[in-house]
Amino acid sequence: MKAYIITIGNELLIGDIVNTNASWIGTTLTQSGIQVEKVVTVGDNQTDITESLEEALSRSELTIMTGGLGPTHDDITKKAVADYFGSTLIKHEPTLEHIQKIFEKRGLPFTKSNYGQAMVPDNAEVLFNKWGTAPGMLFRKNGNIVVVLPGVPHEMKALILDKLLPKVKETERGQGIYKVHYFQLAGIGESTLSDEVIGDIGDMFNGRMSMAYLPHIWGITLRISCYADTEDEADKALEPVKEHIRKTASEYIYSESADVGLSSVIGTLLRSKQATLSTAESCTGGLLSGRITDVPGSSDYFKGTVVAYDNEVKKAVLGVSKASLEQHGAVSKEVAIEMARGVARQLGTDYALSTTGIAGPDGGTPEKPVGTIWIGYWSKKQELAIKLNLTKDRMINRDQTVVIALDLLRRRLNGIETLPYNLKPEFL
Amino acid sequence: MKAYIITIGNELLIGDIVNTNASWIGTTLTQSGIQVEKVVTVGDNQTDITESLEEALSRSELTIMTGGLGPTHDDITKKAVADYFGSTLIKHEPTLEHIQKIFEKRGLPFTKSNYGQAMVPDNAEVLFNKWGTAPGMLFRKNGNIVVVLPGVPHEMKALILDKLLPKVKETERGQGIYKVHYFQLAGIGESTLSDEVIGDIGDMFNGRMSMAYLPHIWGITLRISCYADTEDEADKALEPVKEHIRKTASEYIYSESADVGLSSVIGTLLRSKQATLSTAESCTGGLLSGRITDVPGSSDYFKGTVVAYDNEVKKAVLGVSKASLEQHGAVSKEVAIEMARGVARQLGTDYALSTTGIAGPDGGTPEKPVGTIWIGYWSKKQELAIKLNLTKDRMINRDQTVVIALDLLRRRLNGIETLPYNLKPEFL
Repeated sequence: MKAYIITIGNELLIGDIVNTNASWIGTTLTQSGIQVEKVVTVGDNQTDITESLEEALSRSELTIMTGGLGPTHDDITKKAVADYFGSTLIKHEPTLEHIQKIFEKRGLPFTKSNYGQAMVPDNAEVLFNKWGTAPGMLFRKNGNIVVVLPGVPHEMKALILDKLLPKVKETERGQGIYKVHYFQLAGIGESTLSDEVIGDIGDMFNGRMSMAYLPHIWGITLRISCYADTEDEADKALEPVKEHIRKTASEYIYSESADVGLSSVIGTLLRSKQATLSTAESCTGGLLSGRITDVPGSSDYFKGTVVAYDNEVKKAVLGVSKASLEQHGAVSKEVAIEMARGVARQLGTDYALSTTGIAGPDGGTPEKPVGTIWIGYWSKKQELAIKLNLTKDRMINRDQTVVIALDLLRRRLNGIETLPYNLKPEFL
Repeated sequence: MKAYIITIGNELLIGDIVNTNASWIGTTLTQSGIQVEKVVTVGDNQTDITESLEEALSRSELTIMTGGLGPTHDDITKKAVADYFGSTLIKHEPTLEHIQKIFEKRGLPFTKSNYGQAMVPDNAEVLFNKWGTAPGMLFRKNGNIVVVLPGVPHEMKALILDKLLPKVKETERGQGIYKVHYFQLAGIGESTLSDEVIGDIGDMFNGRMSMAYLPHIWGITLRISCYADTEDEADKALEPVKEHIRKTASEYIYSESADVGLSSVIGTLLRSKQATLSTAESCTGGLLSGRITDVPGSSDYFKGTVVAYDNEVKKAVLGVSKASLEQHGAVSKEVAIEMARGVARQLGTDYALSTTGIAGPDGGTPEKPVGTIWIGYWSKKQELAIKLNLTKDRMINRDQTVVIALDLLRRRLNGIETLPYNLKPEFL
């Protein structure tokens, strides 16, 4: 099955918003064995919307349109599509009730343009949107499907996963399968991983298989994929590659699922040990703790955090010694370890992580330039710190520190000897 | 001048890469007064590339193509364009020397496919790419410009800024300017803002002006824009609209710049009062603190945070009373206020914010369903709490709580009486 994506909105054309919807849809359809042929972005303009829809119908069995379904005047996607399919707009009672309830619950007044959101084309199948106020709409024409969805990412995603894909699978006529497997890795650079760890494994690939290195802020996602006639054929082709990667890159792999992140892996490890965690943060300002608590149920093992942005707080709450602060400065091995130790004692946890550093853009010195960051680790058995020399960019430095701290903990919990990026541990 | 963007690459279609090139080009062209009409993404497929190029030439004076210029077999953009323009490929000496030097410097062997990168269409103007190995190419047809650029972001950006835009400006025949103004608003829904606060102001717009509501996690960005012959004409057209918005929506506007966010506005307000801030977080787990410290120099006014994920920490570190926890539960007005009060005392700050709630997906009860969240506020003059009834989605609940807490503080610091979403303050 071939698909065509039309994303609508002036804000996309002028670059106010990055088109993450298109990439998410691309990934999701590809994983379902649907081939995305073309992505088009047009403004809130009826002629452009209609022309794109016509082209889409001429070359693809599935057309996904997103955006321009909001309650305000500049949103005209529904009108354009209704005109194209010769529809009359009628009231959709379940949607109206649903929207009214949302407004009631939030204590907001219900206005005329909200009422308009419950109007749907009479010849469309309504995809009820329990996550928001604009319903999805599905049209069928000569066996092809056209679906119109809101541009709000979580609503669009839920409607595709819960409503659209099951319908598409009903419609589809056995076109073979596409299988994909993910490895998520941390604590290593892309070229070292590909050149020195995994090596050239081109021989292991037949013409219908491929592998991609996708570096991102959480590390590297390695995607290996295969088109095949049967599930079994795909598994047989992929297995030797998976084995090779598991064998060569074992210490770096934290997950073999695209949905299971580093925080969730750490949660599973802590839970299995019935151990608890706390953090003491300076340069990351709460982001490390924020990522740890992204995971539902993290209160089972995570006790809390002290963000000590101020040296007084480091002393008063965490018990960092005046001597260490004066002799070595706040950005030092000594303070990093004392922060971790202090928060573990204060909150009574089995493990603790700390961060202290110069995130930038200002505050650097010749000895401690911007990007100098210490991560501290404390457990009953061991306390240590590692020193990072990162970039001049505040956001990158903070995010990178969070990932490396989490990877450090993952390795310790897993009994892996080495540290992220082969950094050397430093002790008091 | 109208522009059409064609981004090329299978990795874009299958969503392995987010199309940040398209948004960057959109922003850059818009700022130069060039109107982006359409963005198309196709795979590494000659027919699709050629068809898109034909459509682009039929409707725009400027076509920008990026991607598919690498040395590997799957990159076919150069061949497609050369075929379309009936070109012969010839060697470009400066590029060849440049590439050879790069390889020499890196100690890498120079292969046949690298040599191919120095071959350019004989009827193209070469845009020398000192930042990488694939040169840009510029074609002219019937007064229109088609430019072909590598997809590597920093190379593409440098070629557009340094090489393309100066040439476009030469070519342009005085097509006037584009002016844009942003308002950033928080604490109000999109439809209430448009229907009841700002109202229908269609009469204030001439045919070359437009307004868009862009809702996002930080609130709503309102963009008003205008094409005009002169700067002065644009200002005159936009001024009455700006005045109207400032008059009607004043309490919601936190910034009139696309780059200045809520955290940074709060930082400016605190700095001007020489006041300090701390936070005590439960359900947001450090994200509120993380956002506050996104701002460089935030250590001037931000002292720190206690993330009290555990009730023991709420009692021991923040001094929340056992009685309140037992009688009202951790998710209550009483605990929210005691958390804010406790962290202000513990860290010695002038202001404090707190969060406690059920972020989900589990943990709800009939009286306190998932999405029930309290925000506490403390200053020397006043302590209060507000209750939110949010969604079933953990991520949305946490992010929304952060934004509402920051907006609450902004309003208090600015002396604005009302609270976000017109919520009622609750006191002890």
